[in-house]
Amino acid sequence: MSYFDVPEIKFEGSASRNPFAFKHYNPEELVDGKPMKDHLRFACAYWHTMRGTSSDPFGAGTALMPWDDGSDSLANALKRVDVFFEFIQKCGLDFYCFHDRDVSPEGRNLAETFDNFDAVTEKLLAKQKETGKKLLWGTANLFSHPRFMQGAGTSPSADVFAYAAANVKKAMDATLKLGGEGYVFWGGREGYNTLLNTDMKRELNHLAQLLKMAVAYKAKIGFKGQFYIEPKPKEPTTHQYDTDTATCMNFLREHGLLGEFKMNIETNHAELAQHTMAHELAVCVDNGILGSIDANSGTQNIGWDTDEFPTNLYMATDVMLAVLKMGGFTTGGLNFDAKRRRESFQPDDLFLAHIAGMDTFARALKIASEIKKDGFLEAFVADRYASWNSGIGAKIEAGEACFDCLSEYALKQGEPLATVKSGRQELLQATLNSFIR
Amino acid sequence: MSYFDVPEIKFEGSASRNPFAFKHYNPEELVDGKPMKDHLRFACAYWHTMRGTSSDPFGAGTALMPWDDGSDSLANALKRVDVFFEFIQKCGLDFYCFHDRDVSPEGRNLAETFDNFDAVTEKLLAKQKETGKKLLWGTANLFSHPRFMQGAGTSPSADVFAYAAANVKKAMDATLKLGGEGYVFWGGREGYNTLLNTDMKRELNHLAQLLKMAVAYKAKIGFKGQFYIEPKPKEPTTHQYDTDTATCMNFLREHGLLGEFKMNIETNHAELAQHTMAHELAVCVDNGILGSIDANSGTQNIGWDTDEFPTNLYMATDVMLAVLKMGGFTTGGLNFDAKRRRESFQPDDLFLAHIAGMDTFARALKIASEIKKDGFLEAFVADRYASWNSGIGAKIEAGEACFDCLSEYALKQGEPLATVKSGRQELLQATLNSFIR
Amino acid sequence: MSYFDVPEIKFEGSASRNPFAFKHYNPEELVDGKPMKDHLRFACAYWHTMRGTSSDPFGAGTALMPWDDGSDSLANALKRVDVFFEFIQKCGLDFYCFHDRDVSPEGRNLAETFDNFDAVTEKLLAKQKETGKKLLWGTANLFSHPRFMQGAGTSPSADVFAYAAANVKKAMDATLKLGGEGYVFWGGREGYNTLLNTDMKRELNHLAQLLKMAVAYKAKIGFKGQFYIEPKPKEPTTHQYDTDTATCMNFLREHGLLGEFKMNIETNHAELAQHTMAHELAVCVDNGILGSIDANSGTQNIGWDTDEFPTNLYMATDVMLAVLKMGGFTTGGLNFDAKRRRESFQPDDLFLAHIAGMDTFARALKIASEIKKDGFLEAFVADRYASWNSGIGAKIEAGEACFDCLSEYALKQGEPLATVKSGRQELLQATLNSFIR
Amino acid sequence: MSYFDVPEIKFEGSASRNPFAFKHYNPEELVDGKPMKDHLRFACAYWHTMRGTSSDPFGAGTALMPWDDGSDSLANALKRVDVFFEFIQKCGLDFYCFHDRDVSPEGRNLAETFDNFDAVTEKLLAKQKETGKKLLWGTANLFSHPRFMQGAGTSPSADVFAYAAANVKKAMDATLKLGGEGYVFWGGREGYNTLLNTDMKRELNHLAQLLKMAVAYKAKIGFKGQFYIEPKPKEPTTHQYDTDTATCMNFLREHGLLGEFKMNIETNHAELAQHTMAHELAVCVDNGILGSIDANSGTQNIGWDTDEFPTNLYMATDVMLAVLKMGGFTTGGLNFDAKRRRESFQPDDLFLAHIAGMDTFARALKIASEIKKDGFLEAFVADRYASWNSGIGAKIEAGEACFDCLSEYALKQGEPLATVKSGRQELLQATLNSFIR
Repeated sequence: MSYFDVPEIKFEGSASRNPFAFKHYNPEELVDGKPMKDHLRFACAYWHTMRGTSSDPFGAGTALMPWDDGSDSLANALKRVDVFFEFIQKCGLDFYCFHDRDVSPEGRNLAETFDNFDAVTEKLLAKQKETGKKLLWGTANLFSHPRFMQGAGTSPSADVFAYAAANVKKAMDATLKLGGEGYVFWGGREGYNTLLNTDMKRELNHLAQLLKMAVAYKAKIGFKGQFYIEPKPKEPTTHQYDTDTATCMNFLREHGLLGEFKMNIETNHAELAQHTMAHELAVCVDNGILGSIDANSGTQNIGWDTDEFPTNLYMATDVMLAVLKMGGFTTGGLNFDAKRRRESFQPDDLFLAHIAGMDTFARALKIASEIKKDGFLEAFVADRYASWNSGIGAKIEAGEACFDCLSEYALKQGEPLATVKSGRQELLQATLNSFIR
Repeated sequence: MSYFDVPEIKFEGSASRNPFAFKHYNPEELVDGKPMKDHLRFACAYWHTMRGTSSDPFGAGTALMPWDDGSDSLANALKRVDVFFEFIQKCGLDFYCFHDRDVSPEGRNLAETFDNFDAVTEKLLAKQKETGKKLLWGTANLFSHPRFMQGAGTSPSADVFAYAAANVKKAMDATLKLGGEGYVFWGGREGYNTLLNTDMKRELNHLAQLLKMAVAYKAKIGFKGQFYIEPKPKEPTTHQYDTDTATCMNFLREHGLLGEFKMNIETNHAELAQHTMAHELAVCVDNGILGSIDANSGTQNIGWDTDEFPTNLYMATDVMLAVLKMGGFTTGGLNFDAKRRRESFQPDDLFLAHIAGMDTFARALKIASEIKKDGFLEAFVADRYASWNSGIGAKIEAGEACFDCLSEYALKQGEPLATVKSGRQELLQATLNSFIR
Repeated sequence: MSYFDVPEIKFEGSASRNPFAFKHYNPEELVDGKPMKDHLRFACAYWHTMRGTSSDPFGAGTALMPWDDGSDSLANALKRVDVFFEFIQKCGLDFYCFHDRDVSPEGRNLAETFDNFDAVTEKLLAKQKETGKKLLWGTANLFSHPRFMQGAGTSPSADVFAYAAANVKKAMDATLKLGGEGYVFWGGREGYNTLLNTDMKRELNHLAQLLKMAVAYKAKIGFKGQFYIEPKPKEPTTHQYDTDTATCMNFLREHGLLGEFKMNIETNHAELAQHTMAHELAVCVDNGILGSIDANSGTQNIGWDTDEFPTNLYMATDVMLAVLKMGGFTTGGLNFDAKRRRESFQPDDLFLAHIAGMDTFARALKIASEIKKDGFLEAFVADRYASWNSGIGAKIEAGEACFDCLSEYALKQGEPLATVKSGRQELLQATLNSFIR
Repeated sequence: MSYFDVPEIKFEGSASRNPFAFKHYNPEELVDGKPMKDHLRFACAYWHTMRGTSSDPFGAGTALMPWDDGSDSLANALKRVDVFFEFIQKCGLDFYCFHDRDVSPEGRNLAETFDNFDAVTEKLLAKQKETGKKLLWGTANLFSHPRFMQGAGTSPSADVFAYAAANVKKAMDATLKLGGEGYVFWGGREGYNTLLNTDMKRELNHLAQLLKMAVAYKAKIGFKGQFYIEPKPKEPTTHQYDTDTATCMNFLREHGLLGEFKMNIETNHAELAQHTMAHELAVCVDNGILGSIDANSGTQNIGWDTDEFPTNLYMATDVMLAVLKMGGFTTGGLNFDAKRRRESFQPDDLFLAHIAGMDTFARALKIASEIKKDGFLEAFVADRYASWNSGIGAKIEAGEACFDCLSEYALKQGEPLATVKSGRQELLQATLNSFIR
């Protein structure tokens, strides 16, 4: 039984004009001695691919999903698993990610909800074994149901908090069962819409309690995967507590949790926070906390999360430079947390969209690898800071300087303007361009 | 000798139409048992008031300053001190703030620069004694001279760093001499314009070294004032390291400096960081690190630092609510880091602009005081979190809950939706409006 | 039969603390000799009030609507009419606005859809007669159904265009039947998501054809109401063709339609276009095309249409100053195109939200009236341009000057800097504040 | 005498690593049968290149200009002409652009200012003849001097207007003398900072008078060059009247001036207006009013005019696609209205920056040419609108349809959803990427 009238996607090289072929992604091709697929670790997002109807605040869903009966039944949920695995197999996506409620429906009560979830995760496990596909990370949806309208870990209601905790526990159990390599905390509605009704301090302390319990539970059940926080500054709430990487690190430090979490960085979220993707990644890499990446893109001039499929070679190159700089992914990967446009409503658009994203990152990997091998950009930066490698610079870095000695030094040395060299931004940008070919 | 053809500004009450009178700021009037002036602690910014020419990137200065000969001479600098003190006396501003280079000119070398600075600070000290005016805080300008074009504490040149450190030392000495109640670190060009040429990690470590040396030097010289960091996300650099309060706290925590610094929060900087002023203040108050405030305002739809004089009653009320919540300023105050528009070029516009700001905050103080006394808003928030005061909520807050027990609880309790109450944002906004009268 | 457990909302004055009372809106109170209600002409939006479920892209609806069976049946639609009229009666809203599909469901085909619509508009007409409530304007929803996913008047499919035209015709018929005072064209999905697949010129010409046919049809059926265009720059599409007032005017001029349309200006749309509400209104008033107003508000720092209930007194004052300046509404009014927050999910929040908005505009009306009577601000502006009332200024305005004579004049007159007076922005802002009391 | 220690820049091909060589710009290389240089018509901006000191609102100029004595003397101005022509010759820039005050200083009065201007333009003319370089366009700086602080054509002072007019006349005379191919009107301070002190309608009418006089004067002196308006939405004023192309067209239409002006579109200005460059260009091309281009770029996340040198291949490709679509430049060209970063302070950075921009556009020209020859994207769009080429679509386009007949058609045809085809945005973006190589 086949749900998609699309053949398995093959690599045909950059000259191919076949829309249903990879032009750049060649899974087994070696880049720096490692197969592309192991560099990129592409993952498919169950929520967008299987549950995204392409509705928006101004209109109903447009996506054609002939396999889906539109019901919230368990049978429908189980059927979707087959469709999904056909899709990721044909599309050459080695990993996937899900929220609990993406894969299985709410029941009449929590126990039934858990039973539904168990039933579907059994099937997911079977399909994983059958196909060799893997779970990049799992998570719990703590933001869609009305009970979470005012937050989950930061709800004003302690009962909602308890309910959320129960779901995190269950989702961690499922992630463990499925051999998931990570577990994501995206703070759906952990934030506020107005400070007029909010005790931010109390809410944040509750959120810290939730994470601490998760850490304890992880140890208890022996889950070896990585915990990730996924920063976002706004939407759905007016202020999301996990604003950006620095804000998350501050929170984790305050509560003694920094060693337990890495970041899952999403391009569109970085952009909403007025950061470049390169910035958020650099903050992570500098601090050893880059975990995984939600590979998508915002839309120029648009102030909400559009989750476009990533096709910008500059952005993708920045991502792959960061990934290479940290020595490659360990537990993480490139998860297409991306949705085709509402106007791309045909089932085959799912393929075209993923191909677009995968080819973009495959090219970016090759570009980044060449930049790294070339060494020019890296050497420029190293040379720019050469004055810190010895003399007064080395003394300062070693913590051996003080204001008195530096003042004496400055008075003696005189005007330091001549020690400043051109920043050469234009040359560096032109150089970067020369690798995009 | 008088430089301004404007009389001393007096309180005339809200019915007055005299532009050169206060309608709301009545310094000795008691609010909650404390004189307005002690609540507000208004400060004048030397840089805008005396050195702002009202130039912009598209045109030359327009400000009429008949007292200023336009030269960079020491004599001119000393004369400005007289003008400045006449201004703050007539305008009823009890405090002032300055950068080293606002008050005294660069010399032919650092030693001469320091001598110039000494000469002017002697005169400032004399004028303080004569008038009773006080220094709210001092600081060093580490961003205007070309030597600092690529940063000061984060310059790629160790010699520039040393030069910067020497200036901070000197500015701290001067602040101590003048009895300043605080010292501000605004990271002028501590940031980057492109990551292509930047080693962010190394730069941030250097910045931490600078702050650590400042802390050591503070102890050495016995300066008892408060150190402040002033967050800003961009401008002049593309990315300023001291992005917002959370980012600064993260940095301070990482380097073991959190206890040594409070924040100097500027409205326009908060806005550039896509935060409300209320948010930045709440983060500070919740963490016990609200130090002082740069009272100004951005311009709707404008993406750069416009430093308008603050006249929005909503924003000012948010500020005064935060100040009252923390129990009032200790070392800090409301510093008008604000410049009149380029079109307001007459000397008397300096008065009109400060009157506008002072009256706005005086009204806001009275409004905030009434909101606090009324108690409705505070009670609403407290009640919203009542479920955390006992039972499962209290247990979670006490750190005595775990996923297993919460899961059991949730399974037993059933659907928690009914425990969520309306957030009542519209009612709360209408209630807030009722105090603006 | 009563659907809301809330009494009729009465005016109780500014001292009242009753949440379910007006503090400022006193319908029959005269302002400048005209009852408040005739100044303000408040309207209720059927779509938000009756059909808004408070879902968002991240979660399901939260709004409690015990009267609604959740079905798309005609019976349910007819019942909603009763609920709606109870609401607007109790809330003192004299007008309402609707889209065709707000009030009646799609049928199995267009004919049945029209029949459904007829059935409901019959009931609306009866309720209008029974209650004295009036239709401010009607419109057709040409954006929610998937058939309109790529536009209606600008769809690449001519059949979709024809279908849209049929619905506009029908909605105009209904508006005429109900005595509607206007008809709105909001270009839902008239725009593009990417220029890569778009022939913008052809789409805009189609849109012009639609409007021309509407003008012809209006004449044919004798509809005397006003046509409005409602500008918006983005959302749902990446670029909405009706970007802002100037863009709409350009389009109308190009196609010879300027005299046939006025503008329906929405605050949140103005803000998304990076304009102040005051700016968009001034453009309209200056050009005699301010028709009606969608009274709502965006959220600071948020880049999508949040449609908050308007509670900002500055913005509301700007609106009422513009309305007074044009001599008051004729066919238009203040339509609350606003939705309570998703967290304000109780039925009585509908009342609290509308009360907040109505009181805000009632205060703003009184403030604007006082500003106008006072005359200071108007006189300041008039005086600023005094040089244009005679001499060279008058000659230029009369079109009697040329470059040669002006060059001669300038050479003779010498430096004109002294003719420029201070813009006094700070004084004017402080003066404006003095009326907000 | 040589001012730059840099050799003439030569084309060395994409493999070259010589920073002072073109990798893609090969002036005489034919693209579509026309030399690159005639496609691109690169121009150098006198203001940035010769007069940009790289100061910013937070610091003094950093640019090293050893040829410049820093004075405002005529001698210094005349010397700069030599430096400038050496630069554009060595850098292979065929055109240049200037404001009157870039090239010559203010005198003690207007007559002397004009004399200064005459002296320099004589030298410019001589250098043009000597080198074969041409003036792409001239203009008058009506925004830098304090006399223009409240506008020039929209100043509240009629005397300032007259002074501005005299300068426009003189700058037009000079442009004619130098054989300039165009004249630009950028509305420097034509806008407002607050509506509180502004009569927008009167100001706009004055601006229209200025343009009308310019049109009359153009005819009088026989200037055959093209007039351009340059849109910008904000900065230096809070609202610039020439907001974007649509706004300018509306203004020109209102005043019967549309046929007299084309647009000079700047990337960074388009971005500040929340448009893509592609959008602004499409609006121009669709309306036959694309005149010339200010080739630069903004900075991601930055809300002011950063005027970066353009290096983004996507943006440059959009530009060249538009230029090819309109059949190439006639009077216009690609003017680098761009400044190197403040940190790129060495004289040779002027070369590196221009090389970066020129190579980017040379590549983009080749990419755009290939896209055009390939035809895929164009054919996709044409096919998407095929339903308009016959039947009901053709009837509507011909203006022969009406609501009655379309309603009848729609009722008969039934549901049109099946006539809507996938928008294929992801496929189109991937296809575009395949040309960037």
